[in-house]
Amino acid sequence: MKLVTFEVKTSLGIFDRIGAIIKDKIVDLTLGYATYIAEVDKQDKAFDMANALVPPSMLNFLDGEQGAMEAARKTVEYITGIISQWKEIEAPNGGKVVYRKDKVKLKAPLPNPRLMVDFSTFEAHIKMGCEKMGVDVPKEWYEIPIGYKVNLCSIVGTEEPIFWPSFTERFDYELELAICIGKKGKDIPEEKAYEYVAGYSVVNDMSARDIEMKEILTMPLGPIKGKDFDTGTVMGPCLTTHDEIKDPHNLKMTAKVNGEFWSRANTKDMYWKIPRLISHLSKDQTLYPGCMFLSGTPGEGCGMHFDRWLKPGDIVELGIENIGIIRNQVVREKSL
Amino acid sequence: MKLVTFEVKTSLGIFDRIGAIIKDKIVDLTLGYATYIAEVDKQDKAFDMANALVPPSMLNFLDGEQGAMEAARKTVEYITGIISQWKEIEAPNGGKVVYRKDKVKLKAPLPNPRLMVDFSTFEAHIKMGCEKMGVDVPKEWYEIPIGYKVNLCSIVGTEEPIFWPSFTERFDYELELAICIGKKGKDIPEEKAYEYVAGYSVVNDMSARDIEMKEILTMPLGPIKGKDFDTGTVMGPCLTTHDEIKDPHNLKMTAKVNGEFWSRANTKDMYWKIPRLISHLSKDQTLYPGCMFLSGTPGEGCGMHFDRWLKPGDIVELGIENIGIIRNQVVREKSL
Repeated sequence: MKLVTFEVKTSLGIFDRIGAIIKDKIVDLTLGYATYIAEVDKQDKAFDMANALVPPSMLNFLDGEQGAMEAARKTVEYITGIISQWKEIEAPNGGKVVYRKDKVKLKAPLPNPRLMVDFSTFEAHIKMGCEKMGVDVPKEWYEIPIGYKVNLCSIVGTEEPIFWPSFTERFDYELELAICIGKKGKDIPEEKAYEYVAGYSVVNDMSARDIEMKEILTMPLGPIKGKDFDTGTVMGPCLTTHDEIKDPHNLKMTAKVNGEFWSRANTKDMYWKIPRLISHLSKDQTLYPGCMFLSGTPGEGCGMHFDRWLKPGDIVELGIENIGIIRNQVVREKSL
Repeated sequence: MKLVTFEVKTSLGIFDRIGAIIKDKIVDLTLGYATYIAEVDKQDKAFDMANALVPPSMLNFLDGEQGAMEAARKTVEYITGIISQWKEIEAPNGGKVVYRKDKVKLKAPLPNPRLMVDFSTFEAHIKMGCEKMGVDVPKEWYEIPIGYKVNLCSIVGTEEPIFWPSFTERFDYELELAICIGKKGKDIPEEKAYEYVAGYSVVNDMSARDIEMKEILTMPLGPIKGKDFDTGTVMGPCLTTHDEIKDPHNLKMTAKVNGEFWSRANTKDMYWKIPRLISHLSKDQTLYPGCMFLSGTPGEGCGMHFDRWLKPGDIVELGIENIGIIRNQVVREKSL
């Protein structure tokens, strides 16, 4: 499934909903599941049960682990069948179940992760960084995965503006694969790691290089303001579930700026693989549904590799095979 | 006020509540406010209104900003008056309003902050670290506040066990002042910074030094597993509101291990002051109620300064003047 969070405007205000993409449609998973249990199992209380098992918030949905995911799958199968017969669909409460994809506003699929660790897994990127600093890649980089944690208050979705921080003149994107945990666990062995993965998304980890370099070149604590500013983390367009990704270590990654390819990469070049990252992070540390971690940016996965920098007005499109493309405009003025 | 989160066991299960300490008592702020509006303003719907304005979750309460804080203050005044007359107090819904402090289990006052940035503000601590690395303090340390972000899934309260991570042999505490934001804002000028502070707490930022050093000595992204493990961040015992702290830059800080003083320090030695940290962090970045930041550990504020390390079974007590003491036992085995 390709799971999304999308916005619905109503006379009672704007609501976030979770959905699944079916071709050019998006099915509201909560109301879709209510329709399914009302019509297939002939159950009363379908609306209340759907809100409990397939709640309209992605974090609450992920908390339902395997049971919620199975309910979503059944919903997609059921609705796909009805759509193919050209039947109209209305939920038991009178709500709309199916939307035209091009008519809804997507948000970050998981706007409020519980944790987001951005790992440095691509050797070519750390090599480039070390070359610019005039040093070799430290041997420790090959011994233990390193990274930093993302500010969880600044996550936005595709098509939202990225605001240019007033304190930078070297603004850059970073093209990254996001992995979302779907099952609570601790001390997870590598061979079981994928059981804990709900799915994958694309992240743009926007970076203010001038201040980031000041923070990390000579000091040991990693970036803060180099990464932390409103709209600094874009996630989307969907969360592709693990079963739909044949091999997460063979996914093409691309970045375009104003339609021109700046980056082409592949997740196969991750030196640190996903099972090892999960095993490492979960050592003596409980991972919960809705915890995420990132691949870091690949070789040539950001403008810094080419000494090319974004300008106000630029359109940045980051894509990963089988997930999709996030597209955002960089905006200098804070009023659009 | 000294605000707390505490646990109440009922026949319907265990609930978290927010309270304020009044001498040897804790008043349930939600039910206390319901009692106040029911008896003073003679209002119907007191229980529902209290749950809306002074909700029993600290994060939701802080989201109410000044209005919620004023309601809490009125509640404390009102309940203090009743207690002094030795009157019994029962909430409009029949609930218990006042508890004996020694009978309740405290939790971290804010168990789920939205953000927690741990700044390096004490020159003596960075000097010690740099000396151990055989380098001078970088000039950049004096130009820009640095820090890293805390894993928000591992926060516990006073008297809870701290589990020894299996991967470390150099386990250490860090004695830190926590500052909690109580008002949403961005680009906050230094002269207005304290308007955005809800209050202060004590944090123990537990550190696995061996793996932390491997992560940060030669690599630029800061600590992950050196700090990230279950129960790795202790917060408590309360959140002392800003009005009760005469000068946050003149607070005595102490650490004891098994009753012996290991650390004595004072927040006056923070090179980076709170208004500057708020101004810096909020640049192009919205701070929300429930965002927190930490002072980092002072000179001699952790065992590493003396090459002294914790052992399984040790009792660690960290205290800051006008806030209180957090007391935790370090436990090697995961079953107590």
